[in-house]
Amino acid sequence: MSAQSWLPIDPKSQFSLQNIPFGIISTTQNPKLRPAVAIGDHAFDLMAFASAEGFKDLSPHFSQINVFSEPTLNAFAGLGRPVHRVVRLYLQEILTKDGKYSAVLERNIELHGKVLLPLKHVQTHLPMFIGDYTDFYAGKNHAYNIGVMFRGPANALQPNYTHLPVAYHGRASSVVVSGTPIKRPSGQILLPGTKEPIFSPSKKLDIELELAAFICTPNEMGQPINVKEADQHIFGLVLMNDWSARDIQAWEYVPLGPFLSKNFGTTISPWVVLIDALEPFLAQGLEPGDRDNLLEYLQEGKRENIYDIKLEVDLTTPNGGCQTIAKTNATNLLYSYPQMIAHHTIGGCAMRTGDLLGSGTISGLEVTERGALLEMNENGKVPVKLNGGEERMFLEDGDMINIRGFCGSKGAYVGFGDCSGKIIK
Amino acid sequence: MSAQSWLPIDPKSQFSLQNIPFGIISTTQNPKLRPAVAIGDHAFDLMAFASAEGFKDLSPHFSQINVFSEPTLNAFAGLGRPVHRVVRLYLQEILTKDGKYSAVLERNIELHGKVLLPLKHVQTHLPMFIGDYTDFYAGKNHAYNIGVMFRGPANALQPNYTHLPVAYHGRASSVVVSGTPIKRPSGQILLPGTKEPIFSPSKKLDIELELAAFICTPNEMGQPINVKEADQHIFGLVLMNDWSARDIQAWEYVPLGPFLSKNFGTTISPWVVLIDALEPFLAQGLEPGDRDNLLEYLQEGKRENIYDIKLEVDLTTPNGGCQTIAKTNATNLLYSYPQMIAHHTIGGCAMRTGDLLGSGTISGLEVTERGALLEMNENGKVPVKLNGGEERMFLEDGDMINIRGFCGSKGAYVGFGDCSGKIIK
Ligand SMILES: [Ca+2]
Ligand SMILES: [Ca+2]
Ligand SMILES: [Mg+2]
Ligand SMILES: [Mg+2]
Ligand code: NI
Repeated sequence: MSAQSWLPIDPKSQFSLQNIPFGIISTTQNPKLRPAVAIGDHAFDLMAFASAEGFKDLSPHFSQINVFSEPTLNAFAGLGRPVHRVVRLYLQEILTKDGKYSAVLERNIELHGKVLLPLKHVQTHLPMFIGDYTDFYAGKNHAYNIGVMFRGPANALQPNYTHLPVAYHGRASSVVVSGTPIKRPSGQILLPGTKEPIFSPSKKLDIELELAAFICTPNEMGQPINVKEADQHIFGLVLMNDWSARDIQAWEYVPLGPFLSKNFGTTISPWVVLIDALEPFLAQGLEPGDRDNLLEYLQEGKRENIYDIKLEVDLTTPNGGCQTIAKTNATNLLYSYPQMIAHHTIGGCAMRTGDLLGSGTISGLEVTERGALLEMNENGKVPVKLNGGEERMFLEDGDMINIRGFCGSKGAYVGFGDCSGKIIK
Repeated sequence: MSAQSWLPIDPKSQFSLQNIPFGIISTTQNPKLRPAVAIGDHAFDLMAFASAEGFKDLSPHFSQINVFSEPTLNAFAGLGRPVHRVVRLYLQEILTKDGKYSAVLERNIELHGKVLLPLKHVQTHLPMFIGDYTDFYAGKNHAYNIGVMFRGPANALQPNYTHLPVAYHGRASSVVVSGTPIKRPSGQILLPGTKEPIFSPSKKLDIELELAAFICTPNEMGQPINVKEADQHIFGLVLMNDWSARDIQAWEYVPLGPFLSKNFGTTISPWVVLIDALEPFLAQGLEPGDRDNLLEYLQEGKRENIYDIKLEVDLTTPNGGCQTIAKTNATNLLYSYPQMIAHHTIGGCAMRTGDLLGSGTISGLEVTERGALLEMNENGKVPVKLNGGEERMFLEDGDMINIRGFCGSKGAYVGFGDCSGKIIK
C-alpha cells in the first residue's frame, strides 16, 4: 500500500498513488472532453496516454482504448469491474518508482508534458452521462433528526424505515459538476400562519451532505440484482450536495414527495473513486449488513458493508470567512450500496451504466456532525455561529459550500476532491 | 380539414390525413431503427423517403434530413415546432389527392413500396430517448377519489392541490413501448392487520390511464419557461399506462413518494401526435386556464388549455374476453401541459429534448369513467364485473390492458393507436 511514485506527490494530497480516481477533463489547449485520472496535483490524460500507445503492454487484458476518446466515462464503466481493476493497477504500476512498466512513462520524459497536466489548468466536467438519478435516505440519524422535528421522538422514523432503504427518483438533468454556481430557486411557499402560498425566492436554502454511487454494469428490466453480487455493479463513488429548498419542500411534498425543492441543482465531485480503492476501508455502518430482521433479499451476509470515509462541510461567506461547519463519517448509514441496489431492482427496475444513486444525508449524533443546516439549526431555531461574529440559519447569496471526503492516512489518502457550489441570485 | 388522400384510408383509422403522428420503426427487411409517420394502415418511412430525395422541394424550409436517419425522434424534435409544422404540412400535401406535390409520391409509383410499409409488418420502438420522466397528478377527479378512500371527503385533496400541479420524478428507464410485456413486480408488502412486511409478488397490480407529453425545445438550467410560451416546448402527446403496484406503494410511499411501486414498467403508445394536430381540439379542462386564484406564473390567459381527447381502457383476459372497462376524456384535468411545464421549470429545473411528462391519472366523475382499478373497485371492495361472469379486483397474470385515445370524427380521426401491455409472471 505504501509504494512510492516517481512523480512528486504532496503527502497531504487526496489523490495519492493508492487512489487513482477517474474523471472527465478539458483544457484550454484541447477543449475536447476526455477521460483522465487524478494523481497528486496532476490530471493524467488517458486519451493522450492511449494515443501514445501507453496501454500497449496491457493489450492482452485491455484493448478497448477507444473508451478513452469518449466525452464521458460510461463506455469505460460499462466494461465492468474486472477491467477497471486491471487498468487501475496498471496505472499504479506506471506511476510507481522503478515499477514494472517504468519504460512507459517514468523514463519516457517527452511524454510527461502530454500526459501529466497540472490540475489547476484543467477543467473538470460531469464524469458520466446520467440516465436516471435516485436519492436514497439511508442516513438514519438525519431521518431521525428530521422526524423528531416534525413528528416528535416517538414517531420520528416511519414504520418502513428499518425494513427498506427509502428512496425517491431525482432529476438527472439537475446534476452538475463541482464549481457550477447554484441559482437560488423561486417557487411557492406557505408562510407560517397563512393559508395561501406566496411566490418568492426560497428563504430556506439548505445543503445535504451525501455520497453518491455510479452504476457500471446494467441489469435487464425484470432481472433483480442479488445483494451479494451488487458491488460488482458499482463503478465508484463521488461526493454529492443535494441542495434543498426547505420552504418549497414543506409546501409541495405531500403526498408524492420532494420535487422542485430538489431539482434546481445537485452538485457532485468530479473524480469517481473506484470501489477497489475504497475496499480497504470497509467498516460496519449503523447496523451490521447481515442483521436477520431484514428480509432475505437485503441480507448481505457480511457485517462490514459501508466505507469509513471522513466527511466535512466548509462554508465560505461573501466576507471571505471559511470554516468547517460539520464533520461526520459515511459509517452513519443504515443501508449499504449493495442493499440499495438490491432494493432498487427487486421489483424489476432496470439500472443503466451511469445511473447515480445518492446515499441520503449523512449525519452523526452530535450537532457538529450534521449534514444539513435544517438539522444544525434545529429547524430554524438556533443559527450556526461562524467565526468573526457572522451566523447562518440557511444559505445566503454568495455563500459557497464545499464538501470534502477522504479515507486513509497521510501519504496514502484516498480522497474525493472538492464538491463545491456558490449560491447566486 | 377534410382533404382526401390518394392512399386508401379506412374512415375509422386513427391515423387520418389530419393526424400524421411520428414514431420510430424497424422491419424484418431493414432492422435499422428509423423515423416514420403513421397514415391509415401504413407506416411512411421517412428515412427511405429522405434518401429518395422526397424532401427536395422543401429544402428552403427544411434541409436537415439527416434527422430522419436517427434511431430516435430527438434530433427532429429538437428542431422546434416551426419545423415540425412545415414537415407535417408537407407530408399532408404529399399524401393529398392531386395535391401540390403529387409528383413526389402519388405519381411516383416505384417509390410506394419503399416508403409505404404495411403497419402490420412494422415493429414500433420508443419514439424518443427519454432523459427525465416526470409524472404529474393533474387528474383532479382521480386525486379526489383516492383522497376520499384514504382520508375521507373533507380532506380528500391536500391544501396544495388547487395551487400547483403536484408531481414526482419518475424513472426514465422504466418507460417501454406498447406491446412490451410487463412482469408482475415482487416487493415488500404490509398485509392488513400486520406490522411486519412480507416479500411477495404484488397482489394489487393496477393501471393508470394517462396522457404524456414529449419536450422538444429545451430550457437552460435557471431559466424558467413562461406559461404563455410553454406550448412551443411540446413536441406532442402519447398515451401512457403508469402501471402501479398498490400494495408496494402503500408501504413504501411515506414520506418520499412512490418508488418501486411505479418503476417496474411504464407503457407509452408509439406514435407521437404533434401539438399542431391536437390544437383544433382545445377545450376547457376542469377549471379555466386563466382562473385568477392561481399565482401569476400559472395563469395562461386563455380558458381553453386542455384537449378534448376521448379515452378508453380495454381489458382482455386470458380467456379471450375483451371489454372496455372505462371511458373518459382528457378534459378531466385541472392543469394543462403549459401549466405543468411552467411549474416544473419555475425554480430553474432544466428540461431537455425527449423529456416525458405524464399527466396523472385521468378519471371522470362516474364509476365507469375511472382511469385506475383502485378507483373502479372502491379501494378493493367492489370487483369490476366482466362479460362471461369473470370479475377483477386487480390485474391477474395474462391480463392485457390496452389504452386508446382519439379526437375528431369519422374520416378525420386524430388518434394515438394502441398503448398495450400484458401482465406476465
Ligand atoms: Ca437527499
Ligand atoms: Ca401516475
Ligand atoms: Mg438536488
Ligand atoms: Mg410506471
Ligand atoms: Ni401498400
